[in-house]
This record gives sequence, structure tokens and C-alpha cells, in this order.
Amino acid sequence: MTDKVLLAFSGGLDTSVCVKLLEEKYDVEVITACVDVGQGEEEMEKAKNSAANIGGLKHYNIDAKEEFANEYIARGIKANAEYEGYPLSTAFARPLIALKLIEVAEKEGATAIAHGCTGKGNDQFRFEAVIRAMSDLDIIAPIREMNLTRSEEKAYAESKGIKLSYDKIYSIDENLWGRAIEGDVLEDPANEPPEDIYEWTASWEDAKDEPEKVSIEFEEGIPVAINGEMMPLVDIITKANEIAGAHGIGRVDTIENRMIGIKSREIYETPGAKLLIAAHQALEELVLTTDELRFAEYMSTLYADLVYRALWQEPLREDLDQAIDNMQERVSGEVVMKLFKGSIQPIIRKSPFSLHSIEQITFEDKETDQREVEGMIKHHGIQAANYQKLNR
Amino acid sequence: MTDKVLLAFSGGLDTSVCVKLLEEKYDVEVITACVDVGQGEEEMEKAKNSAANIGGLKHYNIDAKEEFANEYIARGIKANAEYEGYPLSTAFARPLIALKLIEVAEKEGATAIAHGCTGKGNDQFRFEAVIRAMSDLDIIAPIREMNLTRSEEKAYAESKGIKLSYDKIYSIDENLWGRAIEGDVLEDPANEPPEDIYEWTASWEDAKDEPEKVSIEFEEGIPVAINGEMMPLVDIITKANEIAGAHGIGRVDTIENRMIGIKSREIYETPGAKLLIAAHQALEELVLTTDELRFAEYMSTLYADLVYRALWQEPLREDLDQAIDNMQERVSGEVVMKLFKGSIQPIIRKSPFSLHSIEQITFEDKETDQREVEGMIKHHGIQAANYQKLNR
Amino acid sequence: MTDKVLLAFSGGLDTSVCVKLLEEKYDVEVITACVDVGQGEEEMEKAKNSAANIGGLKHYNIDAKEEFANEYIARGIKANAEYEGYPLSTAFARPLIALKLIEVAEKEGATAIAHGCTGKGNDQFRFEAVIRAMSDLDIIAPIREMNLTRSEEKAYAESKGIKLSYDKIYSIDENLWGRAIEGDVLEDPANEPPEDIYEWTASWEDAKDEPEKVSIEFEEGIPVAINGEMMPLVDIITKANEIAGAHGIGRVDTIENRMIGIKSREIYETPGAKLLIAAHQALEELVLTTDELRFAEYMSTLYADLVYRALWQEPLREDLDQAIDNMQERVSGEVVMKLFKGSIQPIIRKSPFSLHSIEQITFEDKETDQREVEGMIKHHGIQAANYQKLNR
Amino acid sequence: MTDKVLLAFSGGLDTSVCVKLLEEKYDVEVITACVDVGQGEEEMEKAKNSAANIGGLKHYNIDAKEEFANEYIARGIKANAEYEGYPLSTAFARPLIALKLIEVAEKEGATAIAHGCTGKGNDQFRFEAVIRAMSDLDIIAPIREMNLTRSEEKAYAESKGIKLSYDKIYSIDENLWGRAIEGDVLEDPANEPPEDIYEWTASWEDAKDEPEKVSIEFEEGIPVAINGEMMPLVDIITKANEIAGAHGIGRVDTIENRMIGIKSREIYETPGAKLLIAAHQALEELVLTTDELRFAEYMSTLYADLVYRALWQEPLREDLDQAIDNMQERVSGEVVMKLFKGSIQPIIRKSPFSLHSIEQITFEDKETDQREVEGMIKHHGIQAANYQKLNR
Repeated sequence: MTDKVLLAFSGGLDTSVCVKLLEEKYDVEVITACVDVGQGEEEMEKAKNSAANIGGLKHYNIDAKEEFANEYIARGIKANAEYEGYPLSTAFARPLIALKLIEVAEKEGATAIAHGCTGKGNDQFRFEAVIRAMSDLDIIAPIREMNLTRSEEKAYAESKGIKLSYDKIYSIDENLWGRAIEGDVLEDPANEPPEDIYEWTASWEDAKDEPEKVSIEFEEGIPVAINGEMMPLVDIITKANEIAGAHGIGRVDTIENRMIGIKSREIYETPGAKLLIAAHQALEELVLTTDELRFAEYMSTLYADLVYRALWQEPLREDLDQAIDNMQERVSGEVVMKLFKGSIQPIIRKSPFSLHSIEQITFEDKETDQREVEGMIKHHGIQAANYQKLNR
Repeated sequence: MTDKVLLAFSGGLDTSVCVKLLEEKYDVEVITACVDVGQGEEEMEKAKNSAANIGGLKHYNIDAKEEFANEYIARGIKANAEYEGYPLSTAFARPLIALKLIEVAEKEGATAIAHGCTGKGNDQFRFEAVIRAMSDLDIIAPIREMNLTRSEEKAYAESKGIKLSYDKIYSIDENLWGRAIEGDVLEDPANEPPEDIYEWTASWEDAKDEPEKVSIEFEEGIPVAINGEMMPLVDIITKANEIAGAHGIGRVDTIENRMIGIKSREIYETPGAKLLIAAHQALEELVLTTDELRFAEYMSTLYADLVYRALWQEPLREDLDQAIDNMQERVSGEVVMKLFKGSIQPIIRKSPFSLHSIEQITFEDKETDQREVEGMIKHHGIQAANYQKLNR
Repeated sequence: MTDKVLLAFSGGLDTSVCVKLLEEKYDVEVITACVDVGQGEEEMEKAKNSAANIGGLKHYNIDAKEEFANEYIARGIKANAEYEGYPLSTAFARPLIALKLIEVAEKEGATAIAHGCTGKGNDQFRFEAVIRAMSDLDIIAPIREMNLTRSEEKAYAESKGIKLSYDKIYSIDENLWGRAIEGDVLEDPANEPPEDIYEWTASWEDAKDEPEKVSIEFEEGIPVAINGEMMPLVDIITKANEIAGAHGIGRVDTIENRMIGIKSREIYETPGAKLLIAAHQALEELVLTTDELRFAEYMSTLYADLVYRALWQEPLREDLDQAIDNMQERVSGEVVMKLFKGSIQPIIRKSPFSLHSIEQITFEDKETDQREVEGMIKHHGIQAANYQKLNR
Repeated sequence: MTDKVLLAFSGGLDTSVCVKLLEEKYDVEVITACVDVGQGEEEMEKAKNSAANIGGLKHYNIDAKEEFANEYIARGIKANAEYEGYPLSTAFARPLIALKLIEVAEKEGATAIAHGCTGKGNDQFRFEAVIRAMSDLDIIAPIREMNLTRSEEKAYAESKGIKLSYDKIYSIDENLWGRAIEGDVLEDPANEPPEDIYEWTASWEDAKDEPEKVSIEFEEGIPVAINGEMMPLVDIITKANEIAGAHGIGRVDTIENRMIGIKSREIYETPGAKLLIAAHQALEELVLTTDELRFAEYMSTLYADLVYRALWQEPLREDLDQAIDNMQERVSGEVVMKLFKGSIQPIIRKSPFSLHSIEQITFEDKETDQREVEGMIKHHGIQAANYQKLNR
């Protein structure tokens, strides 16, 4: 009996080619699955149709949007997780997709999970780390294992009569939390990105001509309402993407340090992520102590690094979640952000847990005696003074 | 013989009141000095005239602009030094001012240095830490020692016939690297700052309607040319303030954690600092290794913290400078930044020390065998996998 | 009606003097309280008798040993909390003592809590930070407020007929977790400490002549059995002090950086703490991932610093506890330590959560193909190689 | 013409087998080289003789002891570099050995460097990272490339008539800075190491019965004299190994996290390293400020990690060296350490750069007014207090 393999399938070049390679070169039956993490109705439909056309054994479209928002993105917001300025849209989705694939593979009795990643990127690490940690399934990576270039893939696709729904020159990954665009002229950081690569964000020049104020309400670190309207996190993120995108917010053009060590130019569109994280941080500044803010910053870097490296299954991730969740219990309140032409700024921040005290700060305070701090000042930098006295 | 005291003098309410308090309550002769760190011709002139009117023994205007740019701000740029988003304009100037005051005090045979700081702020720590470390002079802080509120100061000034050149409602500090505005309605973070407090920056709405591209050239981490024109750092900063200010860049509205521990709402205008630091960071991303970038980020936080706390005389500061200077040897090249309506983004980055390699990144590479990374991927997260296997 | 004040009382010079000073100079009635955190029956008895002799209004002896072990020391073990090599015995006890004092003060209707700390040490910060955070009681610090030296205190004590139970030349603080000895010849780090200051530990030379193996069992990071015998933590610590002390383990002779910034020579005896923390760390090395170990080390430093600075009420402390508790869930198992003449070494470590795998490590493994790692090695240090290639 | 390959050669099983494998399976001529980093005369002689017996083209014995001490170990001492308690003896030597190999290979016109590392350990990373960064030579790793187990190697050696000078059951690496012992029964951390694996250190029980005091003098962080006698660093280390080894100091038995991620039980003997680093740290505590000590600790971890990962060529390493060298300028003075039965403790520390001041610490000080610190204490933990007040 022929082995069955479950292929992570999007309908793009890499995964379409994989269906045929698996059948032809690996001699297995192919089940395809596409996990919906917010890449859009159209994309999901396209995946389904492509699968039907290419002719695998069976196709799954799996809705994981709510889970993605509530179990993954929510954690990203609470941790202010950004890797070198990038809010980790693809990276956050990979572990969830891998877990969904494992579920289907086990249900279908597949012996392996296949993916279409090449040997240069991060996603191969991400899928495989999760699959290895969470199952005993084999892993097949046809493009990498056969060492194919993109041109060779295209030639093979043509030879097999695979019709790609449209001819992408860029490698694009899209989900609720952001959009990543790679490849072609973008590889060279000396090339300014062509305007037509962007779909979620207006250019600064074409963005709305009126500034807009957006209110975000948080409960325990998680956005629960936007402009006063309570809604599920999936909807808040969708709304935040629309609002911030229209103001040209969230374009990221960066030199990224990839997992295998090389520097790579990357373009992302993450308007909602940028808006929600900025609002979240503004609220934290009001309610967390200085010591907590420094620790939160440290954890944020660690968290982003774990997510970037797909170590969602690291026990450290759970350890961090515990500290973060405790800290976030007080990150409740409202923040009003002003948006305009790519710029973003907190205007109002309110919280029942605010540690700011006008009495403690005012110049008109007569109750606390200014003289009190004299000794504090005399001792400030006392070791530096000792050092300089030795010098003199 | 009456003791002589050197007073740090700006001509504002606090320091004007101090002249009279020193004479009347401390029974000393007062020499005044104002150190020019870029607060502007007009301010320096005003200080000189106020000093003459109030009638101290003697007044010094001391030009320290070049030294401020080359020995202090240059270090801030190399370290990307920002404290909670604030590029530390006042904090960087304090140690230099204190050192200049010590010079004059010692030359004039003064027994003490006086300053007009109150007992709530950071500047008392900053002046005194440096004076104590670098001299054996006494320190007098009349406002704090007499525990005066601002209203009491005003009443006293009036009673002494001190004419303040203009009636400030805010407490303002201005130098080459930025402008700080405090007090009155700004104390409450729920109040949006009135537009008229800003002098260096256009609002986003009123900023220029055309985006602008600015080229900054760096040599060993320091800006040496702007838009292709080589000029001294003082002039580059001045120019950067003008250009970025006109695009509404550099307004900072923040909840700051002060040295004595309280949270305080602070407003800054630092257009040039924001432009130059952003360009500097964009160049670093191209030429520093991942390990160096992480270490630079760590040092940046430490450096900003030392400067904020006025620990310029800490030997740690010199230790950090050595590591930073070594790292900055390769931070040479050109960055083009795009500015528009408060937004700022690197467009082009070039350096002879770039670690980015198109050959290493491209999808069309046939030379390196993608299969090579398989073992790397298998070992990725191996301990997390061991942990999860125990769990399952 | 005369105000009542609750005085933290040990029966030593400082606190005995305070009873009289409070009555005479502050004109208040004095209630005394001594909190038992394991300083020993004898000490508690002495405090009670001294209080009776000096004649305050009323005296409390409060047993807090269990709470100290279970709520404070247990956290110290889980965090491996040491400040510059010192397991923080005094520092851990201060917040608990302060909380117990608040309870009594509120029950007795006292208006203030008094303590006998001088103005040079850490304990004034520790008591007062907790009292200020957790109550609205006033604080009185007679020795500091009257600026008394130790000689002046002695003279005053004599003049008031206070009989000190014995004439201590050192300032000693003792509890379940350790013993601190300060003052006199110890102030100068050039003086080797006289042997007679030590009470809990044998010298290396006089320690037992036979090595001893001690088994410690942990459950979720907390010692639950010693040498196979289950017992409450209080008893385990007492036993650990005896066993390790007899082998000369736990003497700490250090240059400590105090809270007010000065360097101070400190001597501690903490045999049990050193034994239990060493065993705990040995177990962690077996069960925590590399990423977790690094994070645990970072948190350990933060935790020790918070405890040293008496910031037990910092919300950061609770945040850290959450992460630590989660991590400690797997720190269960047995460690056998070998003790001899001041030396200590783990001999055996066993845990159901061990991440060590002989299969993964052995040289005789034929299953995993060594060739797999080639790509990993080729990519190792790739940015450093790029850098060196630019150099060459 | 047959290609020439330079083989890193020790005369042990792995490298002896490689000579024949290279000739037979890779069809190249083999030049062998053994770099002397302090493994001892005998070992060097043995390497030379083995090379002659096995019959390669030519053999080099290269003396690099001085360079190893002055350019590598000296840096380790200044950085207090230990990876998980291990002073990195092998790791420090690898880059130097690799650089020496490159020199010979280039001189001899070899096309590649070969090494005998297997695919499980750290050394393959270490050699190859340096060779790739610093040359364009190819790399051959016969054992790994042919996926041989130790038994297979032995069988092959026998079949080729290779006489191993003695039959080692352990894999041993030895140089000036320490001795590493791996393999066989040591792989399982549940096995106590047999006493006969140790050559440099007495057991605690068999160590000298009299304690010994050793004086170490430092200049700018580097030991320059031992017991009052000035000598080159090579000799100081040799002497330190003898003295400390005789007292049973320097046995390390640890669960180490290897570069490929697995946990491995490792045994080291590093008596001199433990003595010199402990003395160095004791001196640092006297002369560095608190801020410097914390930063030094941070850099120490980073440094050890770079060395462990063989990233000697990382520019970060040079950045760290600059900061460390600056800090070490004041790490001059004398430390007396007491050694006994595995225990080690600083007894005396003296330095012209000491920041300890008896005047600042003494209880008998009447000059500084204790009342000064009141305000400091009141502000201590002010945000924690604000937080608790919200709670109450």
C-alpha cells in the first residue's frame, strides 16, 4: 500500500510543485491542507481550487483564525514581540499551522508531513521544530531535498501542466497579523521597493489627509474594544489593519538577521500590529514600575527571539508567559492614538492602575520637604566620585 | 572677607531668584556664569543682560558648543543613546556645564558652586554628582535648601524687583541636542499639549507637504556630511534640526521614570537627534553582526541610563566608550532617509563594510546545496523536543 | 494621651537604647516586639527578659519561623538568590519582620513603628520600604535621627542603667538562613577575621576528617527530604546548617556593595543555604533547557537584587515568582552532594524530568548520521567569516 | 599531481586513523602537524613518533605555548571566562591551533586542512569556523564524512597496522589551561568518575593536609607574580596548576550544554585556572564600581559563550576586549588565596585602586550626618509603594 503524506499547501509555486514531486519522485499519495490564519477568503478558495486542479487525494481547508488571534497574536501583543522591528506575523502562524497539520496527518494515517520550503529561509526550521517536538511523523521537504532553484521549479511546473493562479514575482506570506514580501528586486537593499508590492498600506503621500484618533481599550494586556466598540480580537485586528493601513502605518523595510545567520532584506506590512503594540506600550508606561518596564523589555526581546526561531514548544516560552500574564493583569485601560501619514503617537492614556501621581510631581507641592533628597544626592555616584578622587 | 560663590545662571526665574537669595540669606558674593551648549544667541544675550540687571559681581558667558557636539553628542549618536525614547539633550549637557563651572569657580577662587534646581528633578543630581566627583568645592542649592515653591519664588522675585525677561509658564531647557518643556498643564498626562509649546517642530498637519530625502554620511559612527556637504558636527546637528523639524519629526510625549523614582510626563522636541540616530541605526544594521547588534542594544540602554543619571564620571562610561568606539570603526557609509509628516524611514544604505551578501541570500543560487542545512534543522530546538517528548 | 510606638526589639545595644530614647526624647509609650525568624530559643528568651528589665509597656515574642521558611527562604532556593555570593539571610527576613510589626502596631493602636538602625546600613531601607508600602504608620529611627555613634550609644546605655546581656564587639544578625557578623576589626578587609567570630561553621582545618555524602530530594524546586527523611522545610534547613557547618561550608568573606553605594567588608555564615542552593542548581542543570538556564540566571540576579534592596513589595517580585514557579515545576528529583573541608560537589543527580539522553551523546551511536551537521558547521559564524573576508 | 592535505595530528586514535583514510579514501598526500599549547613534552614527542611510524609525508611540531598564554589565556583571565563552570581550556586553544595550521598549510601549498573530529562534538565547529573565516582552504573531516563509530575506527586502525601508543578508553584533551576527559562510563552522569581519570589534581581526601596561602600579583588584570616571584605567564600558570592541583582544586564535573544542543556530562581538571580566576575576581571586587562589576559579569558570560562557540573571529570579541582592557587597567594589586582540600578563599586583597574606604563605612564616623539619608529612604521603592497603595 502506498504511503500517504500530508502536504502543507497554499496553491503557490512551491507547494504546487511539491504535489507532483511527491507523487513522482517520492512515490506517495498526497493529501493537501491549507490552514486559514487570516490570509483571506480568496486565498483559501484559491488553495482549494488549485488542490482540486492538481489532483491530490484530498484537500482540507482548516479555519484557525480565532485560535491564531487568541492564543498566538494575543501573546505577541502582551509581550510587545517584535524581531528587529518586525511583529512576527509569519513566525507566529507557523507553530499553529504545524499543529493543525499534525492533527490532520494523524487523523488520516499519514506517515509524513511535507512542506515546500527551500533551504535558505526560516520557515523550514519553524515547521520542522514543531513537528519533531510534537509528533513522531516523518518530514519531507522536496524543494530542499532536490535542491531546486525557483527557475527549475517553474520549468518543472510547466512540464507538469501546473497552472499557477497568477504569476507572482515575489514570495508572499499573508495572515491576520501581517504581510511579508520577499524576493526579486527586493533582495538588494539598494533598491527602493516598488509601490505596487504593497496591498495593506497606503504610501505616506497617498494616505488620508486628515489625522485620525483611535481609541483602544485593553483588559489585562489584550485589546477588547476599538473606538468604544467591544469586539472579538480577530475583528479588532482586522479593523486595526484597515484604520492604520489607510494612514500609511506599518511598512517595515529592514535588514534582517535570519536563523541561518545571513542578512536578508525584508519587507513587511503590519499596520494593525504596529497600532496595537504602540497603544499597548503606551499603557504599560503608565501602569508598570520602572523595574517591571526594564524586565518587560528584556522578556520582549527573548520572546520575539523564541517566536522567530519557532521555539514555541520551548518550556522557556511558558515560563515567560507566566511572568508576562502576571504583569499584564494591570495593563487595563484606554489609550487614544493619533494616526497621520505614517506617524503614530499616544494622545491620552487612562488606567485605574496608573502609578503616575500629580501630587508627587507638582512644582507647587509644599507638603514634601525638598531638603529630604539632599542625602540621596550626596550619595549619588559615590563610587564614581571615589574613582575620580583616586584619579585626581 | 566675604566668600565668593559661582552660580549657574540662565536668567530664568529659578536662577534669578538665587542671585538675591545667595546675597541675602547666604551672605556671599555672587559670580554668575552661563554655558553656551547651543541654547541660541538670544538666550545667551538675555542671560548676560539679566545678570547685569540683577547685579551680581561678575558674569561669564562660556562658549562650549563645539565641545558639546564633539565630546558629548557624538557619543550619544554612536551609542544610539535614548532614555525611554528621549535622546537625553539636557542630560548630556549637564556634566559639561558642571565641568565648565568648576573651571571658572577655581579660577575665581570661589568656595562653592550654586544652582537653582528644586528638590524634585533630575538636574540637582546631575550637577552635584559631577561637582562632587571632580572638585572639592561646596555646593549650594538655595531653592531646595529653603524649600520654595514656584509661587513663593515668584513672590520673592517681585519683592526684590527682579524683572523676568518674559513670563514663562513652562520650565524650558534648550540646547543643540533638543528642547525640554515641563510644568503647568503638561504635568497631567491626560492633557494634550497645547500646540504653542513647540518651537522647533511643525505639527504633522502643518509640516511640509512634500516628502524629502536626506543623505547622511557617517565616518566611524559620526555624521560628517549632510546632503553631500561635509561640515562640522555642530552644523550638521543644526541643519538636521531644521530639516527634520520642518517635517514634524522629533516630538516626544512620554511618561518618564525620574531618578527619584516618580513617574513624570515630559515633552521634548529633538528633531535632529531623531533623524541622526535613526540614520545611524540603519547603517549599523548593515555592517554589524547579529551578536554585535544585540550587544550594542544592551550597551545603548546602559549608556542612556548612565547619562540620564549623570554618571558621566563613572569608569563604566569609559569602558563602554572603548567597546563602542571599536564597533563604530566600521559604521561608515551613507544612509538616505525619507521624511514626511512626522514619519521617517531609511531608503538607501551603503557601506564598504556591509555584511549583506546578495549571493548568500538569493533564491537562484545553485552553488550552495540546500540539503546542507538539514542537520541544522534536525538539531534545532532539540532540548525543547526532548522536553515535549517527556510531556507526551 | 501619650502616643504608643511599636519598637522592633532584639535586646541588643541599638534597640535597648531606643526604648529609653523613645520615652525620654520622643515622649511616647513603647511596646516592644521581637519576631522569631530562627535566631534561636535563647535569643528570643533574652529579648523577652531584656524587654522586661528595661521596662517598656509590653513585649511580644512572635513566632514566624514556618512562614519565614515556606514563604521567603523557599523562594530564595527556587531563585538561587545570592547577592554577590551572599544568600541574603538578613535581607529575606526584614520584610516578614516588618509585616509582623505592622500587624502588632495596628492591633495595639500604635501610631508609629520604631527601629534601631543607623544611617549607614541597609536595614533602615528594608524596614521602611515595607512599612511605607504596606501601612500608613509613621516611622521613627532614633539612632539615626539623633545621629549617635556606637560609643555615644554605649555611654547613653550606661547612663540609663541598661545592662546589656553581654558585651558584643560585633554587630550580629542571625536567623534560620544565616548569620551576619559586622564591625570592629572586620571593617578593614586587610584583617583576616578572628576565628572566634564563627559559631555555625567549623574552620576548614577543624572540620570533620571524613567526607560525607548528603542526599537532598526536591519537589518543584523545594527541598522535601534530607538523607531520605521527609521533613518540613524549617527542619531541613536546620539539619542542613548542622551538616554543612560541620564540614566548614558556608563562610562568606566579601567586599559588598551596599545600598547607599559604599563598599563594605561583610562576613556571613550560611552553611545550609550554600548546601541547598548548590544541590538545587545541580538539579536544574539536568532538567532545564539551555535557554531556561540562561533566563533563570538572569532572574536570579534580579531577584537577589530586589531582595537585597528590600523591594519585596515590588510587583516585579511577583512577576518573577510566576516565571520561576512555572520553571520549578520540573525541578524535582534527588541530588547527592559530597561535603569535605569546605568543599562541596554534586555526585549524583536524578530526575524524571532529565533532558540528558545517553543515546544522543554516545560515540557509539550509528543511528544518527554524523554528516548531518555539516551544513550547520558551514553556517556557523557566517557573519564573522564575512567580516574577516572584508578584512583580508 | 596528488593534492597535499595538512592534518591536525595528535597521535591519538582519531587522527592516526585519518592519516590512512586520507591516503586511501581521499587519495591525497598527508602532512601532519601538532601544535604545542602546553600538552607536555611527552605528548609532543609521542605525536612526532606516531607521525613517523604511520608514515605521512612530513610532520610539524609547532611551539605555541607563549602565544597561547599571552594572547588567549590572558584574555580568559581578564574576562573571568567560564562556560557553565568550565574555564574553556580546549575552546581557547582551538582558534590558535587552527591559525597555526593555516600558516603551515599555506606555506606547504596544501589545498585543504583535515581534522579528526566526529560529528557530535564542539571541536569540528571550532576548527572549521576559524579556517573558513581566515583562509580559503578546503576542509576535510574523514571520521564525520565516513560516519565512523569509535569501534569502527579501532577496527580500521588494527586492519592498517596502526599501533596506538597506548589504549585510551577516554577521549582526553590537555593543554596549559586544563585537561578534559570524556567518554566511556563518564557519559552517564549517574556514574561517579573513577579516581584514575585524574592526573592533575589530588582528590580532596588525598590532598595536602596543611592549608597553603598563595599570593598572586596582578598588573592590569594579568598575573605577573606568584608568591612574590615575577615570572612569565606560562610559568605562572604551570606553577598555579601544581600548587592548586596538590590541594584538590579544579575538578569540574558538569552537565554541559553543547553547541549542537544536547546535554553532555563533562569532566575537567583546571586547578590553575580556578586559582587564577578566583584571585582575579577577588581583586576586581575591590577596585571596580558596582556598575562595572555588573557589566563585567555580563561581558564574562558573553565572552565565554563566544569562546565556547569558537567565534574568536567575531568582531564582537574585539569589541569586548576593548571594554575589558579599559576596565582591567585598574585591576592591579595583590591577592592572597588560601587553599585546602578543594576549598579556596581570598584572605587578603590590596590595590592602589581600591574603592573601599574605611572612613565611609565605620560605625564611629561623626562627620557625616546619618540624617542625610532620610529622604533617600523615603523615596526608596516609591513606585512599589504606589502600587501597594492601589492594592490596599
